[in-house]
Amino acid sequence: MTAIDLNADLGEGFGRWRLTDDEQLLSVVTSANVACGFHAGDAVTMRRVCELAAERRVTIGAQVSYRDLAGFGRRAMDVPPAELAAEVAYQIGALEVFARAAGSRVAYVKPHGALYNRVVHDERQARAVIDGVLLADATLPVLGLPGSRLLELAARAGLPAVTEAFADRAYTEEGTLVPRGEDGAVLTDPEAVVERSVSLARSGTVTARSGRPIEVRARSLCLHGDTPGAVELARRVRARLESAGVRVEAFA
Amino acid sequence: MTAIDLNADLGEGFGRWRLTDDEQLLSVVTSANVACGFHAGDAVTMRRVCELAAERRVTIGAQVSYRDLAGFGRRAMDVPPAELAAEVAYQIGALEVFARAAGSRVAYVKPHGALYNRVVHDERQARAVIDGVLLADATLPVLGLPGSRLLELAARAGLPAVTEAFADRAYTEEGTLVPRGEDGAVLTDPEAVVERSVSLARSGTVTARSGRPIEVRARSLCLHGDTPGAVELARRVRARLESAGVRVEAFA
Amino acid sequence: MTAIDLNADLGEGFGRWRLTDDEQLLSVVTSANVACGFHAGDAVTMRRVCELAAERRVTIGAQVSYRDLAGFGRRAMDVPPAELAAEVAYQIGALEVFARAAGSRVAYVKPHGALYNRVVHDERQARAVIDGVLLADATLPVLGLPGSRLLELAARAGLPAVTEAFADRAYTEEGTLVPRGEDGAVLTDPEAVVERSVSLARSGTVTARSGRPIEVRARSLCLHGDTPGAVELARRVRARLESAGVRVEAFA
Amino acid sequence: MTAIDLNADLGEGFGRWRLTDDEQLLSVVTSANVACGFHAGDAVTMRRVCELAAERRVTIGAQVSYRDLAGFGRRAMDVPPAELAAEVAYQIGALEVFARAAGSRVAYVKPHGALYNRVVHDERQARAVIDGVLLADATLPVLGLPGSRLLELAARAGLPAVTEAFADRAYTEEGTLVPRGEDGAVLTDPEAVVERSVSLARSGTVTARSGRPIEVRARSLCLHGDTPGAVELARRVRARLESAGVRVEAFA
Repeated sequence: MTAIDLNADLGEGFGRWRLTDDEQLLSVVTSANVACGFHAGDAVTMRRVCELAAERRVTIGAQVSYRDLAGFGRRAMDVPPAELAAEVAYQIGALEVFARAAGSRVAYVKPHGALYNRVVHDERQARAVIDGVLLADATLPVLGLPGSRLLELAARAGLPAVTEAFADRAYTEEGTLVPRGEDGAVLTDPEAVVERSVSLARSGTVTARSGRPIEVRARSLCLHGDTPGAVELARRVRARLESAGVRVEAFA
Repeated sequence: MTAIDLNADLGEGFGRWRLTDDEQLLSVVTSANVACGFHAGDAVTMRRVCELAAERRVTIGAQVSYRDLAGFGRRAMDVPPAELAAEVAYQIGALEVFARAAGSRVAYVKPHGALYNRVVHDERQARAVIDGVLLADATLPVLGLPGSRLLELAARAGLPAVTEAFADRAYTEEGTLVPRGEDGAVLTDPEAVVERSVSLARSGTVTARSGRPIEVRARSLCLHGDTPGAVELARRVRARLESAGVRVEAFA
Repeated sequence: MTAIDLNADLGEGFGRWRLTDDEQLLSVVTSANVACGFHAGDAVTMRRVCELAAERRVTIGAQVSYRDLAGFGRRAMDVPPAELAAEVAYQIGALEVFARAAGSRVAYVKPHGALYNRVVHDERQARAVIDGVLLADATLPVLGLPGSRLLELAARAGLPAVTEAFADRAYTEEGTLVPRGEDGAVLTDPEAVVERSVSLARSGTVTARSGRPIEVRARSLCLHGDTPGAVELARRVRARLESAGVRVEAFA
Repeated sequence: MTAIDLNADLGEGFGRWRLTDDEQLLSVVTSANVACGFHAGDAVTMRRVCELAAERRVTIGAQVSYRDLAGFGRRAMDVPPAELAAEVAYQIGALEVFARAAGSRVAYVKPHGALYNRVVHDERQARAVIDGVLLADATLPVLGLPGSRLLELAARAGLPAVTEAFADRAYTEEGTLVPRGEDGAVLTDPEAVVERSVSLARSGTVTARSGRPIEVRARSLCLHGDTPGAVELARRVRARLESAGVRVEAFA
């Protein structure tokens, strides 16, 4: 029987502002990518999300980011490696307090936004993220894109490298994501998203934009939590996976 | 034989800016109050200070603060208790990563600046700081002013409450600090500071502003690291303490 | 014929986060209190709100705040007067660029949140806010609570002091607001809010919590924009005022 | 008689931290690039620098930057053009308040750090900076590197484009700066810096790293204010220029 993890970004408010419906999403996903204060996420929210996650036995991951509240971590930054490594470790440590206090722990790391995209190809920044993870805990799995420099360097450093796929994003024949901004980059039909989820989980394949089936091996599916209807769609994805005989469970 | 700890605020730069001569001070003090990023202190600096402290067997403490880089944590803030508690825990966790990576650990907590002053009397904020410490680690000593609400609540919560004195500050007959801004609040004569240090360490007494000797029981002396001549003065204090037969050693 | 101004806080998002429905509210209010980046408000949002306001001939005001994004400016801070004055001027200047670029100008100043409450009584901070306004433009009206130190000092400094009332807040017999947190402090029945708006505008009176009518002279009514149904309620208030023969127009 | 402007970065402290000796440098330079709060510079410092500059008839310029206090504006960021333009305007407006209050005005704009380097070649960001300047004031001169996209687009937009040279930086034969990090990129011999200053001012030439003289036409020389001996070196440069018959005067 196949197993798949469902992950989503959570705790992405800041102070007065809210973005994600943390409570609802935590009843669907198996892994919570918790914002750690650099692109979003304040200490109160981090604490609350960790408590809810621990209660519901959802695995807690550190969603590490560039230091950029104004840009929500979506603007690539040329952060020198030593700074980036230390900042990644800082974020993991800050989240760890709340995970531990809730009776859980930080069980993996996933880069956010522009950092996520950058470490697909950028050797120096990918290495810096890995260095930051190693500073914090040399056993932490790293969640990222199949084929990314990040996962390659994670594996070399002895960290479990966990792959994820996006059921609501179009893929090229090479198995990379069609860049946002291009036509059809994001799938908006819920039923299509649900079907792709099942296909990704059961057979590790997805239909590329060209129409050809391609292989995308992923241990986790990323669900988006900040769009209208996100919670409802997440529920449908999970229900369909389960009725298709897929075991929905955390990787860590 | 009497023992006294010497503590100083370290790592109080931010990014491009430097304030304290961390390297030199770490060759004098036995406890380092490391800034955790809320009033000062970036991740790179936190890492470096922890490495140096661990190398020199200086105890590492979390110098927690209001979130106020622009005001260097010196402006009292009405932070609701739940926020303050979570922010205290966040800072401890962030520092813990670097302490652990250096082979050490966060061994105590000391509030900074306006928060330090506020928790002398403010019950709610003192309790919030203690709550934050408990979230992070229910065994951490808390360093503060004798007679403060903070230390009283720390003791009640089962946390070791460690007292400190200031060799370069004038005291009232009641044993409280003469507020900065009043005449003679800060002693500037190095020899006077050195002598008071010895007196505080050996007999637990100091001459109040009025001229009368008073009792100030402190397990630690706070040295200031951000004034001209700070390092030289710290060295003299330590040398004189040692030649007076006082054992200079960390409390934690 | 009586005239009343309707003001609301606008542009209170930050980066990725939104709070107020700026576009809708700008079709109702006559004065826009635009967040200037210290408690909320980024440069892009400030620009857009100024453009929309100018288009619709809504008067632009600078909603100045403590520097506290994490606390949304709702935590009182002991900011030294020289800092506060300079920070107030900084915010006004930043907003002025966008107001001018849109063909309008900053036409008044209103403190936000904890600063608003503090300058009701705090002489030093009230004076600092006025000093900041004077630095920016010695002719700018100041909008605030009747009887506040802020308005008193504004008047003494030769600045137009403009009073406002809150149709959705309970009043004491002394004409002050019942503090949030006390029972019945905020009125939730839309019809009650609408009726009080008309009463405040037409007769300058409102029923205090005790049931006795009291006098509240206000040139402006503050509408809240960050609650569910805010836009709809604002529309009803405006419609009822107009049908009651009140001229809804900006004070500046 | 030749005229040359001397510009330096000023007000680059933040809160408790200082970097530049603003008071001393303002007795030497003719143009002050004042930090506006995004990479450095708080409101109190901006006010004080503007007052000193106005007193000494030093021209005030807005030193605009990426929003990056932690990185001192030295980390290139992929800021979308609309955000960058608005942020540039925001900074100019904030500084304008203090310049006006001091009886002066913002008389030019110069990008800082990573933004300065980026707009040498990056068309989109250069255009965004120009758009930001135009939002604020469509007559403001822009100070930058000869041959940069920034100055080219400034000129096309009808803004005065003012060139600057660096007396303490090595040049390639193509007239570009040898990148920091390469051998000999920064000249450390004060006498060499002084001589190059005179050569740049009088003949518009400088000896490239290869030993060949090249032409560098600059209306302004940039002096660095954050290195040890910076003030003394700046004084020597100015004295030597004047004794060589060069008129030291602002361009704006």
